[in-house]
Amino acid sequence: METIIIGTGSSRFGMFVDTPARTLAAEAVAEALKDAGLEGKDVGLVLVGNAVGGVVTGQEMIRSQTILSQSLLVGRPMAAVENACASSSSAFYLAHLAIQSGMHDVVVVVGAEKMTSTDRTLATKALAAATDVSLRQEAAGDGGKPRPVFMEIYAANARNYMARSGATAEDFADVVAKNTRNGSLNPIAQVKVPLSREDVLNAREIVAPLTRPMCAGIGDGAAAIVLCSSGFARAKGKKGPKVRTSLLASAEIEDNHEIVSRTAAKAFEAAGISPEDVSLVELHDAAAPAEIMVPEELLLVAQGDGPSLIRSGASRIDGRLPINPSGGLTARGHPVGATGAAQIVELANQLRGRCGPRQVANPRIGLAENAGGSIFNGAAACMITLLEA
Amino acid sequence: METIIIGTGSSRFGMFVDTPARTLAAEAVAEALKDAGLEGKDVGLVLVGNAVGGVVTGQEMIRSQTILSQSLLVGRPMAAVENACASSSSAFYLAHLAIQSGMHDVVVVVGAEKMTSTDRTLATKALAAATDVSLRQEAAGDGGKPRPVFMEIYAANARNYMARSGATAEDFADVVAKNTRNGSLNPIAQVKVPLSREDVLNAREIVAPLTRPMCAGIGDGAAAIVLCSSGFARAKGKKGPKVRTSLLASAEIEDNHEIVSRTAAKAFEAAGISPEDVSLVELHDAAAPAEIMVPEELLLVAQGDGPSLIRSGASRIDGRLPINPSGGLTARGHPVGATGAAQIVELANQLRGRCGPRQVANPRIGLAENAGGSIFNGAAACMITLLEA
Repeated sequence: METIIIGTGSSRFGMFVDTPARTLAAEAVAEALKDAGLEGKDVGLVLVGNAVGGVVTGQEMIRSQTILSQSLLVGRPMAAVENACASSSSAFYLAHLAIQSGMHDVVVVVGAEKMTSTDRTLATKALAAATDVSLRQEAAGDGGKPRPVFMEIYAANARNYMARSGATAEDFADVVAKNTRNGSLNPIAQVKVPLSREDVLNAREIVAPLTRPMCAGIGDGAAAIVLCSSGFARAKGKKGPKVRTSLLASAEIEDNHEIVSRTAAKAFEAAGISPEDVSLVELHDAAAPAEIMVPEELLLVAQGDGPSLIRSGASRIDGRLPINPSGGLTARGHPVGATGAAQIVELANQLRGRCGPRQVANPRIGLAENAGGSIFNGAAACMITLLEA
Repeated sequence: METIIIGTGSSRFGMFVDTPARTLAAEAVAEALKDAGLEGKDVGLVLVGNAVGGVVTGQEMIRSQTILSQSLLVGRPMAAVENACASSSSAFYLAHLAIQSGMHDVVVVVGAEKMTSTDRTLATKALAAATDVSLRQEAAGDGGKPRPVFMEIYAANARNYMARSGATAEDFADVVAKNTRNGSLNPIAQVKVPLSREDVLNAREIVAPLTRPMCAGIGDGAAAIVLCSSGFARAKGKKGPKVRTSLLASAEIEDNHEIVSRTAAKAFEAAGISPEDVSLVELHDAAAPAEIMVPEELLLVAQGDGPSLIRSGASRIDGRLPINPSGGLTARGHPVGATGAAQIVELANQLRGRCGPRQVANPRIGLAENAGGSIFNGAAACMITLLEA
């Protein structure tokens, strides 16, 4: 029995200070159910990925019920799933298990996040909550004051990578130029204005080599996915991409940044798919250098060959291995708890040939990767999903 | 294929201001894995129930990784599950689905909560986060100031119930007397000193008819459960209670407090078990009147017969239908995200005859119920699980 994606939906992604998460989630859910041709009552279980609702809005405990309180899914059995940047992809993973259990025909995953508010410090505080807060509070000197810890981590990783691979700030800027171009073709993207290499290099520096457009900004958004069993799909005459594998991993103490590579190796093995079979990728470019570094960890290019993807044009929509046709985190946006679901929505839409001006030609296998949070000496959580048209 | 519980563990429950959740969780996990005769590496997936970590400690995003950071489960695939008072029972539900998927042999559920801190207002704020925070902030007059909203709700429900059933404050006090007696027999209980009816009635009033000992206090604690497939259990020579059914439900807009009764009816039907078959119950007495009211909703006694359970002695450990032999929420304690798992730990231990002085005689079927959060006009979430020895 296989798990099939038969519906997707997404709100706009952006900074909507006056729009609550529930409004965005209701939009995404309505679109996904309509796409699937189902009603709320057909859904056996709903898993809601949300990462920072408690810190930003004070809403905890019943995040799934409040986020879905104006949606077509009110009253369906639901729970919230939290796993840093992999919150809604972890929800997708659990939804896949729920379908495979044979105990549910239809499960919906919703990723929703509200990061903007009139108090801008809340988003910084929320992002810092993806590190071990107790250690931060113990650390002498900073008094627990939130800092952009993740951009510091990403910048340090990028500098190390530049030293060993020859990647340049121009490469990272070219990634943003490509992704903002992709974003300009994506109606839901947060950043819709294409930037040039020079625009990116001349922008305000956050932490060298990262300039502002290389860093995913804070934002709001929601995405929804309807999954069903292949038996249900057959019986109801519904079609869609199938889940070839979906794998969750968590930080080991001596991980040395290997969480993505070890998870990718397991995912390809579990799916019986070779990295060369991958048609397109949505990956976690919380900062632009990830688009050059992570394909190596995903075994999609050889060690040190990351920069060739952007230099050769391979990662463009019309290239050999399109990466982040949605615009990725830097252009589509990164409302943390929604990101994992948004990646899978883009893959499913690409695999169904629905992406209009940003459509990849005849994709067969899509790979979604996200990794986030920080604990011990690497990412806290990683999710990799392989879908087949 | 069935889901079997082969290991349980629990920290002490109580107010441990200086002890972080990770210490309590590590204790519970070590005990559960030892009980199951397994090591961390044998575990395919870990789901961590936590309800209020973001509000109380500022830790969100990576709650599972931080809570388990000193445990034997570091590095196992994990995610956090949040669903108000049903957080770790919802995690149990998803763990059951994960076993039934055939994709995992062994899954561990951990419920852990740290509610005490040097700032006592945080626990009140956290509990209030189980209501729709945006509506509360909009409500005129209270300026969003946290109040003990749940005890107000429980007291109003109790007054309505008293009016229609003849239940009295003495009945509620007798429930606490019974449960503190049970707690005195439970090494992990938060309240270990048996109270008399008079002690309870003469204590400080919170909201009439509730006095302080009738209300579950804030507290800290962790509980862990090792689940496996019946195939794995057979192959490894392990035994334990089996999951007959585990059901999750969420608030409907016109629920009129019927979430427990509709979920109970479905659970008995799904399990093919009659309410008369139930040997013992762990139910959600966040306030003591629940022990009299909820058995009616669970179809265990006829409408209006709730008070007979305590008056006849039926709900005592040596009675016809023992309820909350652990001491329940009012005596064992109610660290919110740990409660659902703690109930299942008690049932599994009772069904294995391991409860010493509080052991129920020869139980065959155990029922765990918890319901919590508040949205629309009833509880936001409800979980009911039926286990068989």
